[in-house]
Amino acid sequence: MAASRLGLRTHIFATVENSPAGQVADRVTVARYDDRDAALRFAESVDVATFEFENIPTDVLDWVEGFCQVLPRRNALASSQDRLIEKNFITSLGLRTAPYRNVESVEQLETALAALGTPSILKTRRFGYDGKGQVKLNDASAASAAFSELGQASCVLEGFVDFSLEISVIASRSGEGEVVCFDPGENVHREGILHTTAVPAKISAAQRDESLRAARVILDALDYVGVMGIELFVTDGGLVVNEIAPRVHNSGHWTQNGCVIDQFEQHIRAVAGWPLGSGARHSDVVMTNLIGEDALLVEALSGDTAIGLHLYGKDEVQAGRKMGHYNRITGPARG
Amino acid sequence: MAASRLGLRTHIFATVENSPAGQVADRVTVARYDDRDAALRFAESVDVATFEFENIPTDVLDWVEGFCQVLPRRNALASSQDRLIEKNFITSLGLRTAPYRNVESVEQLETALAALGTPSILKTRRFGYDGKGQVKLNDASAASAAFSELGQASCVLEGFVDFSLEISVIASRSGEGEVVCFDPGENVHREGILHTTAVPAKISAAQRDESLRAARVILDALDYVGVMGIELFVTDGGLVVNEIAPRVHNSGHWTQNGCVIDQFEQHIRAVAGWPLGSGARHSDVVMTNLIGEDALLVEALSGDTAIGLHLYGKDEVQAGRKMGHYNRITGPARG
Repeated sequence: MAASRLGLRTHIFATVENSPAGQVADRVTVARYDDRDAALRFAESVDVATFEFENIPTDVLDWVEGFCQVLPRRNALASSQDRLIEKNFITSLGLRTAPYRNVESVEQLETALAALGTPSILKTRRFGYDGKGQVKLNDASAASAAFSELGQASCVLEGFVDFSLEISVIASRSGEGEVVCFDPGENVHREGILHTTAVPAKISAAQRDESLRAARVILDALDYVGVMGIELFVTDGGLVVNEIAPRVHNSGHWTQNGCVIDQFEQHIRAVAGWPLGSGARHSDVVMTNLIGEDALLVEALSGDTAIGLHLYGKDEVQAGRKMGHYNRITGPARG
Repeated sequence: MAASRLGLRTHIFATVENSPAGQVADRVTVARYDDRDAALRFAESVDVATFEFENIPTDVLDWVEGFCQVLPRRNALASSQDRLIEKNFITSLGLRTAPYRNVESVEQLETALAALGTPSILKTRRFGYDGKGQVKLNDASAASAAFSELGQASCVLEGFVDFSLEISVIASRSGEGEVVCFDPGENVHREGILHTTAVPAKISAAQRDESLRAARVILDALDYVGVMGIELFVTDGGLVVNEIAPRVHNSGHWTQNGCVIDQFEQHIRAVAGWPLGSGARHSDVVMTNLIGEDALLVEALSGDTAIGLHLYGKDEVQAGRKMGHYNRITGPARG
């Protein structure tokens, strides 16, 4: 929809029929990620390819890259698809993450627990999102059960971070290296899934500046092109990077009703080689996710005319599935 | 795009390939308006049909109406497709129009000119828009030439209206009869084509109220469902209705960047049976059209990050053709 607003046409490659993006695209290819012919035909039809899902198999991007530019570049995916590589990358930049240890076995997990203590969180290195692929450990004796629960996959153990709040920076970088950030949003999670993001976040000017500097360091290091979501914990000892996502991010959905140029258009501008938007905000906003059965609230919400309702056109309601979100403007931009 | 935001799917019936709406629709039918089979297949596939072009042949709507609801209803089109019927309808409601006379011959035109004087404007009764199908008469001696220029079509002669400014009310009405209006916008035309719309309009509270009352009277009289654009002249003697358009209207494009629920979503809400938005405005806006060669400005405008740029994806630049528009937020809503 953002591309269309700029007069650009889109071709969506999706693995299922009736994908939300496919419903508003000029062309749609429905194929498996390992359908090389479909990927090549897709690639030949476009000027630039981008993605909104960081767990996309790298094979399909390899094939596509032979025919068109892929932005953000592959190195960003390599860094974000694996939690261990991501944390090594973040700390190599002089930024802080939660204390972490690589875990390939129960023995390594026990050693890691001895070092980091409890509570701590065991997370699979790959394919985790929305609280999936992670187990909280409150006691070292639960090590073996936790590792089994995650299928004995390669994991990282993350130590406890005593944070006052979590914020997100939605950052963008152009092909020429210009970096523009939206104002940090303040996130509240429920059961491991983002529930609300409010802008402005209740942080100091110094914390805001620190978060924007961290975003710039990360994007520059990757020679990144596009929008990235960066989750940070605010602690007494400074900011701690929780996670980076090389795509438009749920915690940036507030920009749809708070900014003239939102994160989706910003991403399209970056990958299409247009000038970036300013990141300026005209209104303060609280974004609330509609997850699973929350979809039943839509009829009631449809009568709340102070909110911008955004529904994704997904066929089926499933527990934990993001069905839509709404943005409530809380006033003209302040602070 | 507005329907998709609400999770609704669209099927576009267009007479040309690559139509702007077709580029973002779930399904597209490209056929001539007189292709009855295509129209029937289209109608069977949708729950409700609406249109964005008031000169659509009535035949195709007759066919479609046998299979699905068509909103706004046909009576609104009947009133707006013919300038004479429209003016008779408006005046029958006790509202003012420019003084007018029916013109079917040079003789009738001469009589009309004697009654209304010059300057006056001769307009074809049907198929006129953006200054097309009209000739300004500064002198009664030009009658015959003017009537020939318009192909001796059925016309109305409109007398001169001494107005200080033109405003538009973008009004909406639900199936239950609720009427909601956006704040009136102030229009500036260039060469007969809308150039800018600014909100708020420089009118008094009394003029604002009068314009909203007029809109309600018109929509109620038609038992209208959907969004309608109503152009009014502001004169010392009160408001004069210039034109009504039974669709989303160019002078309502500012709502895309000034309101949480814009005119497009408002129209979809009305025809889909959803509650209407409030019409509330969070920001003041000036909308500027990009007409014909103005499309060459896009590269420069793309770097102006204070504007919301909306390009229509039309294949070809033509003189007088609307290629896009942009909305500049001028501040938080006032007045």
